[in-house]
Amino acid sequence: MRIGVLTAGGDCPGLNAVIRSVVHRALTGHGDEVIGFEDGFKGLLDGRFRKLDLDAVSGILARGGTILGSARLERARLREACESAKDFSREYGIDVLIPIGGEGTLTAARMLADAGMPVVGVPKTIDNDISSTDRTFGFDTAVGVATEAIDRLKTTAESHQRVMVVEVMGRHAGWIALESGMAGGAHGICLPEREFDVNDLVKMVEERFARGKKFAVVCVAEGAHPLAGTMDYKKGAIDQFGHERFSGIGTALAHELEKRLGKEARPVILGHVQRGGTPTAYDRVLATRFGWHAVEAAHRGDFGKMTALRGTDIVMTPLAEAITELKRVPADRMDEAESVF
Amino acid sequence: MRIGVLTAGGDCPGLNAVIRSVVHRALTGHGDEVIGFEDGFKGLLDGRFRKLDLDAVSGILARGGTILGSARLERARLREACESAKDFSREYGIDVLIPIGGEGTLTAARMLADAGMPVVGVPKTIDNDISSTDRTFGFDTAVGVATEAIDRLKTTAESHQRVMVVEVMGRHAGWIALESGMAGGAHGICLPEREFDVNDLVKMVEERFARGKKFAVVCVAEGAHPLAGTMDYKKGAIDQFGHERFSGIGTALAHELEKRLGKEARPVILGHVQRGGTPTAYDRVLATRFGWHAVEAAHRGDFGKMTALRGTDIVMTPLAEAITELKRVPADRMDEAESVF
Amino acid sequence: MRIGVLTAGGDCPGLNAVIRSVVHRALTGHGDEVIGFEDGFKGLLDGRFRKLDLDAVSGILARGGTILGSARLERARLREACESAKDFSREYGIDVLIPIGGEGTLTAARMLADAGMPVVGVPKTIDNDISSTDRTFGFDTAVGVATEAIDRLKTTAESHQRVMVVEVMGRHAGWIALESGMAGGAHGICLPEREFDVNDLVKMVEERFARGKKFAVVCVAEGAHPLAGTMDYKKGAIDQFGHERFSGIGTALAHELEKRLGKEARPVILGHVQRGGTPTAYDRVLATRFGWHAVEAAHRGDFGKMTALRGTDIVMTPLAEAITELKRVPADRMDEAESVF
Amino acid sequence: MRIGVLTAGGDCPGLNAVIRSVVHRALTGHGDEVIGFEDGFKGLLDGRFRKLDLDAVSGILARGGTILGSARLERARLREACESAKDFSREYGIDVLIPIGGEGTLTAARMLADAGMPVVGVPKTIDNDISSTDRTFGFDTAVGVATEAIDRLKTTAESHQRVMVVEVMGRHAGWIALESGMAGGAHGICLPEREFDVNDLVKMVEERFARGKKFAVVCVAEGAHPLAGTMDYKKGAIDQFGHERFSGIGTALAHELEKRLGKEARPVILGHVQRGGTPTAYDRVLATRFGWHAVEAAHRGDFGKMTALRGTDIVMTPLAEAITELKRVPADRMDEAESVF
Repeated sequence: MRIGVLTAGGDCPGLNAVIRSVVHRALTGHGDEVIGFEDGFKGLLDGRFRKLDLDAVSGILARGGTILGSARLERARLREACESAKDFSREYGIDVLIPIGGEGTLTAARMLADAGMPVVGVPKTIDNDISSTDRTFGFDTAVGVATEAIDRLKTTAESHQRVMVVEVMGRHAGWIALESGMAGGAHGICLPEREFDVNDLVKMVEERFARGKKFAVVCVAEGAHPLAGTMDYKKGAIDQFGHERFSGIGTALAHELEKRLGKEARPVILGHVQRGGTPTAYDRVLATRFGWHAVEAAHRGDFGKMTALRGTDIVMTPLAEAITELKRVPADRMDEAESVF
Repeated sequence: MRIGVLTAGGDCPGLNAVIRSVVHRALTGHGDEVIGFEDGFKGLLDGRFRKLDLDAVSGILARGGTILGSARLERARLREACESAKDFSREYGIDVLIPIGGEGTLTAARMLADAGMPVVGVPKTIDNDISSTDRTFGFDTAVGVATEAIDRLKTTAESHQRVMVVEVMGRHAGWIALESGMAGGAHGICLPEREFDVNDLVKMVEERFARGKKFAVVCVAEGAHPLAGTMDYKKGAIDQFGHERFSGIGTALAHELEKRLGKEARPVILGHVQRGGTPTAYDRVLATRFGWHAVEAAHRGDFGKMTALRGTDIVMTPLAEAITELKRVPADRMDEAESVF
Repeated sequence: MRIGVLTAGGDCPGLNAVIRSVVHRALTGHGDEVIGFEDGFKGLLDGRFRKLDLDAVSGILARGGTILGSARLERARLREACESAKDFSREYGIDVLIPIGGEGTLTAARMLADAGMPVVGVPKTIDNDISSTDRTFGFDTAVGVATEAIDRLKTTAESHQRVMVVEVMGRHAGWIALESGMAGGAHGICLPEREFDVNDLVKMVEERFARGKKFAVVCVAEGAHPLAGTMDYKKGAIDQFGHERFSGIGTALAHELEKRLGKEARPVILGHVQRGGTPTAYDRVLATRFGWHAVEAAHRGDFGKMTALRGTDIVMTPLAEAITELKRVPADRMDEAESVF
Repeated sequence: MRIGVLTAGGDCPGLNAVIRSVVHRALTGHGDEVIGFEDGFKGLLDGRFRKLDLDAVSGILARGGTILGSARLERARLREACESAKDFSREYGIDVLIPIGGEGTLTAARMLADAGMPVVGVPKTIDNDISSTDRTFGFDTAVGVATEAIDRLKTTAESHQRVMVVEVMGRHAGWIALESGMAGGAHGICLPEREFDVNDLVKMVEERFARGKKFAVVCVAEGAHPLAGTMDYKKGAIDQFGHERFSGIGTALAHELEKRLGKEARPVILGHVQRGGTPTAYDRVLATRFGWHAVEAAHRGDFGKMTALRGTDIVMTPLAEAITELKRVPADRMDEAESVF
């Protein structure tokens, strides 16, 4: 069998572990051949690929990033490309394509599958918001980075009687904020799934100070939004450089809390450090298992599906299901988190 | 409600997170009172306990160990104690006991429950070998510590053309060896669940050297055993000090490989570092959720059960089921791991 | 002897290690008594202090922050206080005061010493910019945090062909940027000590891309400033919230590079995570030694001085010398760093 | 200029950082050519080397081990080789050799220098025991690994009322034990430089238990030795496999303490994890500076010397001085450490 593999979308710790696993399982277990397309779908369209043997994937298991590169591709070009999908298989002589990526990638994967190309997807997102899989690799690493930051900020907040607002990734789903906030013991967690009332945060901080706990840490997802009327914040406001991304909720909330409380409040925007670097052991295992099962699915002819974690098992689930709706934090998980502040 | 909590058995990162979560949920969510028994069941028998308020659990979320202490108790004394269980409830005026512990503790918990005491258990083992829960807290931390050690050993093995044998915890179940071996990219993994053939390891190392990869790392669970006739090893052999534990399989295997291969082989026995220290974010979240749900179960009167992870949900499962058999690594997980060496 | 100790100024990993060391050495080595003033000089002025015995400092060696708290104090109030310094000694019955702090604290310490109070200072700054000591504790931890961030950002920059701009602490001296940039292998380092030419950075990135290295990481100290005419940047510009700190050089530089290069550039502002959390082993050793030697100096009557590292020795150096000028990165260290990009 | 570089002796985090720095400085700063000999002096003798350009050293800064490999060489063969040293220079057309290694390597380097070969040495040892340099790279990483282990062991020891004995590297000098013991807050530190009295350790543990601190951690260097008559221990005793190394002082001491105290004591032998893996920021900076200055020295014709850290400066020091005597822990450093237990 000849397998094509590519990585697309934003960076995510564990991508290299999937690539390595696909190559190991395919070559050692089945005697297959594997080629890797460069810079995601761009490489597929432009015919930029290279053969991946055991040496090519040696030493990459613990490395962040992706040895194949990744790049954004305009939807239009991708759609156009998908329509000619069958040609790819013939052109590069591949029997199956294993695209590793997020919602956009899996949507493209489905278009390719619908167009008749044999495809086995591997889901990837640090946001953990893909339906039909319990978890995605990269998420545990992101939560670990954010938790370590909260751990560090707590000691400094405590010594200086400050409020620290940590903004973590999560535009549409608040999984990173939920779990890093819970693991770090944040005293407030704001998620995109539930508009937050700034008055509640103000009250929480005041009660803590009254109890002699003269500091607080609030963990806020970048996509969190205040309840209308409780705070002046326009999502997507443009900063002095014309960039939307530089004036996020974390900075705005720290400013608001400082103003209302009359106490020092500082924002920390974690940003891209959550996306890079050595994956945790958990993510390496999950990524390795996804790679392994993708190859097995390819050999079984189980196309049009993607790997998914269900409990402790890796199962195959239709691409169509995976991308219908975002997996958001359910209300009971938010309640759990709130009650252990 | 008045809740008693205790921690028993070997150390496990996340115990403090459970205690903290129980106290927070009980006090803040329900207006309960919580007392903590010292040194496990010993404190229950001897009447050593203290009140746990929010201040008592402040700052312990990220700390290893247990603020309540833990101690071994002879089965006989425990059994005797269990028979008089109802007295405890009355004596200390507790409406429910939440024992946090491993197989032995859960067995004791069941005895107490059978004797009529309201009990809600929380499973705890770094070995991840308790049935009816997908995972236990502490395991992820242990795997992380072992994986970091393997990462470090790989670079030094590679530079010096050596074979390194890492012995990790796992007397009856090989989960730590499986996942840390997979995450660290070990070239051989030996588990208690499947006797290993030393000849296979010798062949693997020789093939690697032949391919120009002049090093290898083998990850072996302390309870792994060689196939009869492939290596001279008597489990439980007594060392020069009369201790069984100081002459384990790791050391023996390194010696055997060195002898057969004519190459340097070194054992590294990780030992207790796997049990201590700051829990990973994953373990803190799982421990916190277990604590939360144990309190909720207590308030629902859902006794004689323990918390368990199923997929992404925390469910309650009968104590009787949990302790009937050890959760061992199934054959397909071993096959997966072996094929990505 | 009765010793008073206080921590003042910004947070710095290792403060607790100094406190612990002072208490251990004073109590165990000399049979002294130690009291700790709360919230820096504020506690000294307001008479808020508590006795510190071995139990009070148990378990704090590896903890960030300061168990004594720290707070800013207006210069005027401090000066006023210093003039009545002798009273403190008599009022609290202390034979010596050990203030642990940065430049401001050491200046105050000197005023107290000049006013006749027995003082032994311990220098503290994550910025490493205090003259007459080779290093200060806290610096190694800050560099470690920044280096780990750069490590993570490099993998993600590489996969996505991006320029990442990491802003680290250092308003007047660029030590953190210098050492974390060097340790992380940044491709450009901008320090307050030397105005940088944006054209050089643009050229560097373009040359890297031309060589096939399609990413770059620039490490910039918060106090770095562009050469006039090479980039439009007004230090201390006020952001949308009226805060100077939220529109730093990191964000401005990322924007400028993106505009000029036509490639994605992203800023990451590390902020307060550099100040908090567990100190590195290096910082714990240095802090412990500083505490030990401060107590010895007190017993020798070696007042008006502070502890300092010279090579591998801890020596006492006059407070007057320490605060005359900031220790800035010398030109040869900048040259070294630049040539290994 | 054509520069030859090699790495010899035991593994040490930072070797790759030196190699990278040499290549960067030589190529970018001077337009030199660099070749790397494989497996230390073996490659020099056998003529196994490869050209090192910027690509060859890309991405290795943070990686443990050495891309050039390292191997032991019998003294006799080396001596023989040294006598024909001039030939090497001519044979490979190198103008200078930069050997990176420990005491043995530097001795060989001196022989080569005496034989007329232009040599600039770079000292390397995790043990920090080379005279005439304040510190060596690799040491900080080893101390960091050992300290993290002690941190972890303390929490587990405390929860279970145990004595933990951690054996760290250091056959002839106890620097790692000194600094990791101090940083980890060990309650006893045993070094090769001062025979320890087991009775003192027993007394220390008993006093701690009497004070209510029911655990203790002892940090012991592998080369530490008990005072005659206080404990039965024969250095270099042979274990069941005929290996000296498997029956070290850590295991023997744990056994002795358990016997005398009637409390559980457990040994943890850290072993090779101290030698491998990602170097700390401190070690990367020191290694990078050593490489840079070695190239500069070569261009100045400053041969027969090695790089050394003095305070904050890198200086050149005669090889002859470096190897005359081991740098051992002085008495005052031991006193410092002992008084903050």
